[in-house]
Amino acid sequence: MNLDNLTSTSGEWLRANGPEADIVISSRIRLARNLSTYPFTNRASAHQKAEIEAKLRGYIEKLDFNPRLEYLNLSTVVPLDRQLLVERQLISRELANSEGPRGVGVAPNEIISILVNEEDHIRLQVIRSGFALDDAWQDADQLDDKLEERAPYAFSEEFGYLTACPTNVGTGLRASVMLHLPALVLSKHIEKVFRALQKINLAVRGLYGEGSRASGDFYQISNQVTLGKSETQIISEIRDVIPQIITYERQARQDMLRDNRHAILDRCSRAFGTLKSASMMTSEETMDLLSWVRLGVNLGLVDQITIGELNELFIHTQPAHLQKVLGKQLDSEERNSERSRFLRARLREIENQMN
Amino acid sequence: MNLDNLTSTSGEWLRANGPEADIVISSRIRLARNLSTYPFTNRASAHQKAEIEAKLRGYIEKLDFNPRLEYLNLSTVVPLDRQLLVERQLISRELANSEGPRGVGVAPNEIISILVNEEDHIRLQVIRSGFALDDAWQDADQLDDKLEERAPYAFSEEFGYLTACPTNVGTGLRASVMLHLPALVLSKHIEKVFRALQKINLAVRGLYGEGSRASGDFYQISNQVTLGKSETQIISEIRDVIPQIITYERQARQDMLRDNRHAILDRCSRAFGTLKSASMMTSEETMDLLSWVRLGVNLGLVDQITIGELNELFIHTQPAHLQKVLGKQLDSEERNSERSRFLRARLREIENQMN
Repeated sequence: MNLDNLTSTSGEWLRANGPEADIVISSRIRLARNLSTYPFTNRASAHQKAEIEAKLRGYIEKLDFNPRLEYLNLSTVVPLDRQLLVERQLISRELANSEGPRGVGVAPNEIISILVNEEDHIRLQVIRSGFALDDAWQDADQLDDKLEERAPYAFSEEFGYLTACPTNVGTGLRASVMLHLPALVLSKHIEKVFRALQKINLAVRGLYGEGSRASGDFYQISNQVTLGKSETQIISEIRDVIPQIITYERQARQDMLRDNRHAILDRCSRAFGTLKSASMMTSEETMDLLSWVRLGVNLGLVDQITIGELNELFIHTQPAHLQKVLGKQLDSEERNSERSRFLRARLREIENQMN
Repeated sequence: MNLDNLTSTSGEWLRANGPEADIVISSRIRLARNLSTYPFTNRASAHQKAEIEAKLRGYIEKLDFNPRLEYLNLSTVVPLDRQLLVERQLISRELANSEGPRGVGVAPNEIISILVNEEDHIRLQVIRSGFALDDAWQDADQLDDKLEERAPYAFSEEFGYLTACPTNVGTGLRASVMLHLPALVLSKHIEKVFRALQKINLAVRGLYGEGSRASGDFYQISNQVTLGKSETQIISEIRDVIPQIITYERQARQDMLRDNRHAILDRCSRAFGTLKSASMMTSEETMDLLSWVRLGVNLGLVDQITIGELNELFIHTQPAHLQKVLGKQLDSEERNSERSRFLRARLREIENQMN
């Protein structure tokens, strides 16, 4: 897999062609699995980790699945490229920053990735654009079966799939949906939604997982319980609550349009103007401004850019993407300068195409 | 005088062609005079005020001075046009908002205006672009002599010229200089400068006189003492201190360029971008943003616009000017919307001319 080619596309999770794409960015299924023949990653010796990696690499490369996965040995991948994979949501920050034998199998369309020697031996992930948990689950389930044909999974009749952390034991399933909720944030109704979700044991996090701030009003909603319920039960609990949140967000957007149309237009236009004119910009601010423009496009207030183009800007202004796109290593201050230069140039191109 | 024609120019005080125009906007001399044959304006009866107005109107219209002054009877001028004259600094807010017989004689080039029945019967004002107190004083002095040939001034051998308020008694002179001091504001050295000025009895006010906030970092520096000193002494006290403030501001600008060039460029670029993109804007914010762009032009960081064009935007986005330019009465919210529309359109025009 040539990582340099990745920067010419925005990857599956930002493809913006799935159901309810105005609000639901992406749906993700993650399964945690371990080999019964080895200790968990954090208990395994360096030698054992190398064996696990070699074995799983073999299984993944021979996996009879369409599309075929390409395997990357992460210990030979430079930090910038690992960061690139994190930004594309293909690997976790933990796997990127850890050491020792580890890798990832990735489908060229970036829908599927299988992480090797993360917290668990195997983290199998399927991501789909828009609200498409069932599609993601079908792929994940099928892939899991295929892998299980070769890999001896650690499984207990009593507990189900065994995992390094007890919070994943049972199904090993984490189903999550990434939502763009700017109107609920603005109307301050988001906290109410979060409290309701927590009551039914769903977790809410920022864009890049635990501890990350919800930059650009992007929120991940996922299950916390993995034990005592079937996979389809867990998925349906999330799947059934999302349409309600979509309805709330749509309602909040309509209320905003009705009561504050001009103020919202002003915010969106200023955000667009700042993206086109600043000469320094952090990726945090970029996300916040792109979020406003995105809202403007979805409300029909901004027509100089498409959601696809916004997503492309969103991913290409992330630190590693920016450095890959520009073909050079940059420190944080240089990035802030180059990011705004990149934004100005791209937005001028996009505007010229429109005219 | 056709007030509708005023909106096609920016008036003398924003002409930006005087000495030190990068920092000194304008210099102004004001003389307070009263007729000895009538009580002060606030003590005069309606009938007396009408007589004062008629007399002074006659003197002003027959004044042997080049350029000839045109006289406006302010009680027949609609509020919007009076506000226009305030924004152009041709009359005071007090005269615009007061009632009864009152007027103003204005030179077509807007360098001279003579206010009738303000706090004093006569307020004679000369304004010049840039740092040009002496030029302004020469005109004022000459005009004062001409007027005195006809008008019997209230004058006391002991106190000098008598005025309605004791703070003006003596010379009746207020000399003031309007400065643009964004770098001293930003570097927080402005307070030190103000304290030094207060120690030598000079007053500092905002753009539109007493009580007005220093929008856009514009500051008026003027004398407080009018008694016990000659006119030339008063003027030289101000004239001698201004070059020092200019030096401080220039130094602060160079320090900013050296230490924070990129941050300053970013602020200027963003200000320009916001002016080009917002869809609602108060005149306060407009002034603040134009102030940043002005600084950018003077520092060589912004080259898409000239100081003259900025000054034109500055005056044309003031509430009354905006309504005159657009040819309709607007409430405050409509103005904020139309102001940003006007700014976007004009800035697009200016950019197209540059390309």
